Order: sequence, then C-alpha cells, then structure tokens
Amino acid sequence: MDRKQHHELRSEIVDALVQSVIEIPQTQHLNRVDLPNRDSIVRCVGLLRQIMFPGYFGTQGLADKNLAHRISALTHEVFDMLYEQVRCCVRYGKQIPGNDGDAAAIEACDQQATDVVLQFFARLAPVRKMLAGDVQAAFDGDPAAKSTDETIYCYPGLLAIMVQRLAHELLKLEVPLLPRVMTEYAHSLTGIDIHPGAKLGHNFFIDHGTGVVIGETTIIGDNVKIYQGVTLGALSPAFGQLLRGQKRHPTIEDNVTIYAGATILGGETVIGTGSVIGGNVFITTSVPPHNQVSAEPPKLKYRDRRPRGNKPIELDFQI
Amino acid sequence: MDRKQHHELRSEIVDALVQSVIEIPQTQHLNRVDLPNRDSIVRCVGLLRQIMFPGYFGTQGLADKNLAHRISALTHEVFDMLYEQVRCCVRYGKQIPGNDGDAAAIEACDQQATDVVLQFFARLAPVRKMLAGDVQAAFDGDPAAKSTDETIYCYPGLLAIMVQRLAHELLKLEVPLLPRVMTEYAHSLTGIDIHPGAKLGHNFFIDHGTGVVIGETTIIGDNVKIYQGVTLGALSPAFGQLLRGQKRHPTIEDNVTIYAGATILGGETVIGTGSVIGGNVFITTSVPPHNQVSAEPPKLKYRDRRPRGNKPIELDFQI
Amino acid sequence: MDRKQHHELRSEIVDALVQSVIEIPQTQHLNRVDLPNRDSIVRCVGLLRQIMFPGYFGTQGLADKNLAHRISALTHEVFDMLYEQVRCCVRYGKQIPGNDGDAAAIEACDQQATDVVLQFFARLAPVRKMLAGDVQAAFDGDPAAKSTDETIYCYPGLLAIMVQRLAHELLKLEVPLLPRVMTEYAHSLTGIDIHPGAKLGHNFFIDHGTGVVIGETTIIGDNVKIYQGVTLGALSPAFGQLLRGQKRHPTIEDNVTIYAGATILGGETVIGTGSVIGGNVFITTSVPPHNQVSAEPPKLKYRDRRPRGNKPIELDFQI
Repeated sequence: MDRKQHHELRSEIVDALVQSVIEIPQTQHLNRVDLPNRDSIVRCVGLLRQIMFPGYFGTQGLADKNLAHRISALTHEVFDMLYEQVRCCVRYGKQIPGNDGDAAAIEACDQQATDVVLQFFARLAPVRKMLAGDVQAAFDGDPAAKSTDETIYCYPGLLAIMVQRLAHELLKLEVPLLPRVMTEYAHSLTGIDIHPGAKLGHNFFIDHGTGVVIGETTIIGDNVKIYQGVTLGALSPAFGQLLRGQKRHPTIEDNVTIYAGATILGGETVIGTGSVIGGNVFITTSVPPHNQVSAEPPKLKYRDRRPRGNKPIELDFQI
Repeated sequence: MDRKQHHELRSEIVDALVQSVIEIPQTQHLNRVDLPNRDSIVRCVGLLRQIMFPGYFGTQGLADKNLAHRISALTHEVFDMLYEQVRCCVRYGKQIPGNDGDAAAIEACDQQATDVVLQFFARLAPVRKMLAGDVQAAFDGDPAAKSTDETIYCYPGLLAIMVQRLAHELLKLEVPLLPRVMTEYAHSLTGIDIHPGAKLGHNFFIDHGTGVVIGETTIIGDNVKIYQGVTLGALSPAFGQLLRGQKRHPTIEDNVTIYAGATILGGETVIGTGSVIGGNVFITTSVPPHNQVSAEPPKLKYRDRRPRGNKPIELDFQI
Repeated sequence: MDRKQHHELRSEIVDALVQSVIEIPQTQHLNRVDLPNRDSIVRCVGLLRQIMFPGYFGTQGLADKNLAHRISALTHEVFDMLYEQVRCCVRYGKQIPGNDGDAAAIEACDQQATDVVLQFFARLAPVRKMLAGDVQAAFDGDPAAKSTDETIYCYPGLLAIMVQRLAHELLKLEVPLLPRVMTEYAHSLTGIDIHPGAKLGHNFFIDHGTGVVIGETTIIGDNVKIYQGVTLGALSPAFGQLLRGQKRHPTIEDNVTIYAGATILGGETVIGTGSVIGGNVFITTSVPPHNQVSAEPPKLKYRDRRPRGNKPIELDFQI
C-alpha cells in the first residue's frame, strides 16, 4: 500500500470514529460540563496522607522547628488543589458550565466549593484522631506487625480506611463523584473496596484486605476486625436501581471479628456486639450479641493418590 | 574495608551475575528478538480509553467544534504508538530481528503490522457500541451507581472489560504477547483477570470485581452479571501444557447472574440461559436454563461467648 | 466571605492541624530517625527485576557484546540506591539519627549497611537460579502460557515470588522495614500478599493469584502450585501480639497443589508431600502425604425460575 492509500485509510478511520462518537451518546462526554481531573484527585490523596501521618510520607526530617511550616505548606497546597476539583464536581452536579454559564450560578458554585473545602479541613483533626485508633488496632491485631510505624508505612488496610474516612467526609458534604473516585483509587491500590457511603466506627482493622467489599449502606461499630475476602453486601442486587437509597447492607455492632472469606448480606442483617464470624461463613440473617458463628464444616473426603499394584498414578483433577 | 577492597568486591559481584546470566538461559533474553515496550503499551491503553470514552479522560472540554480534531489527533498518536508495538510483537512471533535480519522478512513484518493496526482500528467503532451496552448494564445493575458517568469514570469492572475487548481484537488478529500484556495491566489495576482469549457477549457487568478470574476458553453470552471473586476456570489445570488449545473453561449463556465467590469449572460445563448461580456455589457440571442454583447452606453453629459464673471469657479462635 | 476572612480561616485550619499533630503521637513521625524512601525502594525493585531477568525489562537489545556492561551499570546503580535505603533502615532500627548522632554509631550503621548490601548481592545469583525454576513451573503448570517469555513478562505470580525471594534475603540479613515495603509493593501490583518471612521452596507457581495470602511463618516445599484466593494463615489471629514470633502458619511439603479459594490454617498444620487440596476446602489439621482432599460438596438446590400459569416471574434474590 502506498503512502496516499495509507493516509486515506487513516482518514476513513477517523471519520468512522467521529461518527461512532456522535451516534453513541452513552459513551461520550460531549458539550457537557467538565468532569474533575483524576490525576489531581490522586495527588490530593497523596498530600492528605502526608497531613494525616506527618513525617511518614514525602520529605523526611519532620521536627518541631519545621512542623508548623510544613503543615502550613501542605495545607495550602492541598487546599487549592482540592478546591479546584470540588468546584469542578459542584458545577458538574448542578450542570453549570464554568466558561459561558450564568455568572450568578457560577459564583454560587464557587462559594459552595469554598464552604465545602473549609468544612472538610475542619474535619481533618477529628479524622486524624480516628486514624490513630485504627493504627493502634492494626498493631494490636497482627502478631506480624513489628511497630505502629510499619502499619502506617506499609499496611494496605490502613490506607484504604484512611481514604474512605476522607471520602466519607466529602460525601457528607454532598460533593458528587469525587468521593467515589477517591475510594476506587484506594481499591485499585489495595484490592479493598469500601464505598464512601459506609459508616465506619473507631479502631477499625482490615488485615491483608484483598477482596474485601463493604457496601454503600453498611454501618460498622467500634473495635471491628475484618480479614481478606470479606463481603458486607446486598441481599438482592438483581433489583438494581429499584433499591437505590434503601439500606441494603448489614450493620456490624461493636467488638465484632469477621474472619477471611465470610459473606454477610442484607440491610436488616445485624451482627450483634462481641460476636465472631468464622472464616467462609455465609450469613443472611442477624446474629445475636456475643455469639461465635461457624459453619458446620463440610465433611472432607480423603483419597490416597499413590499407585496400587500396577495401576498407574492418577493425574490430579480439580475437586 | 577500604575503597579498593570495596571496588574489588563489586567487580566480583558483577562477574558472578554475568556468569549467572550466561548459565541460566531460562531467565535472560540475550541475543534474541526484541520484546515490546510495556510502558508504551500502557500508554496505548490510556489513549484508547480516551477514544472509547471521549471527553471522560484526558483533556476536558470536548465539544462539537473540537471533536473531529481531537479524535483525529488521538487516532494518529495511538496508531503510530501501537504500530511500533505490534511490529515488535510480530517480529518477535516470527523471530525476525529488526536490525540485521533478512530485508524481505522485515518488510513482511512491517506490512503485517500495518494491516493488523488498520484492521484493529476498523474494529474500534463496533467495540464502542459493545461498551455502550456494558455502561448501561453497569448502571442498571448497581443501585449505588448515581449515573452512567460514574460507571465510566470510576468502575473497575468496566475498565477491565474495555481492556479485554480491545485485547481480544488483537488476539483475533494473531498478535503475540501484546494482548496478554494489556489484560495483565488491567488485572493489576482492578484485580480482575480476564484472559484475552475469552469471548464476552453484549451488556456484560462485573461488580466490584476483585478476584474475578475468567479463563482463556470461556464463552459468555449477553446480559451476564458477575460479582467479585467469581472463577470461570478449568477443571484439571494439573494436566498443564497437555491441555493447551482445548476448551477448558465454561460456557455461560444469556441472561445469567453469578453471585460473589461462585466457582464454575470445566470446558463442558454450560450454565443455561436465564439461570442464577448463588454466592459461593461450586459447580463442575452443567445447569439447565432458567434455574436458580444455591448451595444447601452448611448448618451454622452458634456458641455463646459470654463468661459463665467464674469462668474467664474465652479468647477467639478462628473457626 | 472576603479575602481577609478566608485567610484567617486558613490560618485557623493550619493551627488546628499542628495542634492535632502534637496531640496524637501515634500518627506522626516527629523528631525521629528518618524512614526509608518508598519511591527509591520501588525503583530498586524495578532495577533488581532487570538484573533477575536481563533483557526482558528496561532497554531492549541485550547481546553478548553489551551484557557485561549492562549488568555492571545496573549493579552499580541499584547497589548505591539500595545502600541508601538499607542504611536508612539500619539507622531507623537502631534509632541512630544520621545528622547529629554519635559519630561512631553512625559509622557502625554505615558499615553494617555496606555488609548487608554486599551479602545481598552475593545472594542474587542463587536467587536467579530459584527464579529459573519458578519460570519453568509457571509455563509447565498453565496451558494458557504460550512461552516462558510470556510468564516472565506478564505473570503476576512470578513478580510476587521474585519480590518475596529478594525481600526474604533482606529479612534474613535483619534489615528492618524494607522487606515488608517490598512485598507490600508487590501485593499492591498483584493482589498476592506473601510476607517476607515465609520460606518458599524451588519451582513455586502461583496462578492468577489475586487474593492469595501467605503468612509470616509459612514453610513451602518444592514444586508447590497455588491458585487464586488461597490463604495459608493463622488459626487464632485474635490473640494478636501475644503470638508474635511463634509459628502460626502451615507447612506445605513438596509436590503439593492447592486449588483456588482453599484455606489452610495453623502453625502445626502440615500438608504432606504429594497431596492435593481441592478448591474452597477449609483445613485446620494436618493432611497425610499423597492424599487428595476435597470437601463433600454441599447439596445444590435447583429451583425453576420460569413463571407458572399467571404467577409473575420472580425477581432474583442472592442466595
């Protein structure tokens, strides 16, 4: 194929794609209010992590003499960056374009964004207090943890909880889209999927964490421990959008431990205070307080795999 | 240890490593045809995402007046970048070195790469149509979804499906290595492992997704919903390379829902149209159409954990 | 709100945050010995991957004529970078500040760091030999693998095993913190969580891998295969720090295969040589050699979902 042919083929490709964009409105964001910038949101999360755990991430050498200066610099940087993204989300939520919309409406969005960010920052000290409890719970709960430093510096569960606590504050301030972008970023890093709407109590510990799913209307009390692969989910997701806004996910009361792979479903399911849910248990009804729930283990079958007499060794089958 | 000693020790280390590289051929790529560049492939995926969902990712402000220009710019950029990688993979597949090989053979690789990329681009509009169905399925299927924008912008399941649909096209065009690099990139981001060889129907929805595994010879019909931790796998992976090329993974017919943690194994296993597979169900045989399959739940045991009389409170055991 | 008010509010925010940092010592690293730099550690892992599998990652075109030069350049680069981080971790472990501490103590840390890095590099050739066995095991074990190149270039299990084998060497050399940072980086990329303390035998294969957890005191023999979602865990993590240092995780002898979702718990649990553990099996006691263990599958219930007479079609419930 010569150069001209190739050029023509490329033009046809572009035309077909443009046509496809116009024809399939569900997959384009055309002539619409801007979306936030995911990279900026990710940077905000990184800076907020530095504010939540000062001296652990970013520049080393935090000391009394530079503490105020560093916190001030971080605060101003993340304030401005977060303001941009919150403003974008507020405009998106109200469908007010930033460039050629109604000046009063734009002004109202800007004001709302300022208020939201100020209120969010006022919540950071209380969130730090919650995180201090989570750090201690992670150390106390894991014999492999060598220090609380290690849990702050390395543990994915703590990262996922930190991001969710921050996203939850933005969700309470009714910022659209942004909270979910934050928790999905943490989900991508950790394999832990906590919806920003979930309510988490004090001293929450998630160990290992890969595969954990905690749904939008879950309520979790204080001193709760959860292991990898635990689902706190909805009983009937097949109803889809019909269930929007209803409490669909369980309530976990104080001092509950849920071991790896357990599944607890349903908006009316309550796991009573002090209960322990065994590994792989599947629960769709409430558990009274102070119970230890385990599944009657399915009888295990053992079969000798060694060859007998002149029978050849059997190949494995997944079983 | 003085400087000289240290220098000598370093030289010894280098010599030992060079020796190790020469002695263990399975772990080096020495004097062989170049591999593709993973970073470039990752950039291609990012640009293709912008073409699949224009206006959602990358530069904001997509409007009628700049649509054709932007799609054109994106297309040319990803065309050239993908061409480089496809050419690399084609040469790798045929073991034709790019620098000092047979000129005719190199030319043939270049031509094949051009053909592949042109055919791939011709498939992008149909893939966009498929993705529009996936977007709608994600919104309809999840009461926590606030808008289709949110599913496009945040949902890991949709990202994994998009990457697999694109990789599957390159696999059909017989490009070696590249498709798997793409799906493993998505696997890393989402915890969802869909082999590029799997055939996915219309309106496919994966919710949460962490831990989902969909094997190479799986066939999935239209309107299928899958939750986190579902495995569509092989019955006897222990046979290893003996099974290469055989259909080893199940067929899921239209309108099937498979809840979290279910495992469906085997190349002859067919889940009939309209069936629902319950959470954690383990299936190795076919299910007739329109069945709801659940596991007889193992009897749960409840034990009161409160201290009685002067008996001390029992410590938890994982159960 | 005017500019001045806004400025005052920001000052108040900074003051409150500084106050919060001072008040909650568990969440700050203030006036303390520096922590290592996570980004540098991640770069070290990337460079070490190039040394483990030369020619696969980084610059292409590795050939006899440039082999020694490239290995030398890589070695020197990673040596210096790793030295910085090891020194940081050694100082951190001994709580010796780098700037104004006791000169002899600082010198001792530097010397220890040099020794550690030299010993670590002397272990790289043996680790490469182990990895060659892992590569072959991955290819042999997966009919979807097209070549050993593909397993090196794409398979997350091999990446997780490589990082753990390297981290394990640093753990044996008693470097604090660094080994866990490395394995948590791999965990984030792959969903595979192998504690650096675990002892892995030759020819280890993890397929798919998302959700795999292998605890600190696990011992794994040669020729072991593990699938996604497998937990090798502790029986009673609720004892927390009381169990520190004890063997809490199982021993897996040679030639064992453990299928997806199986859970094996307890420090005294031994899976005997040649055994096969079926998918989703939950085991807390030892299995003698050459046994195939499967769970008596829970009876499946089938219910026809089609409407009968004038009964409306039933909506799905998760089951």
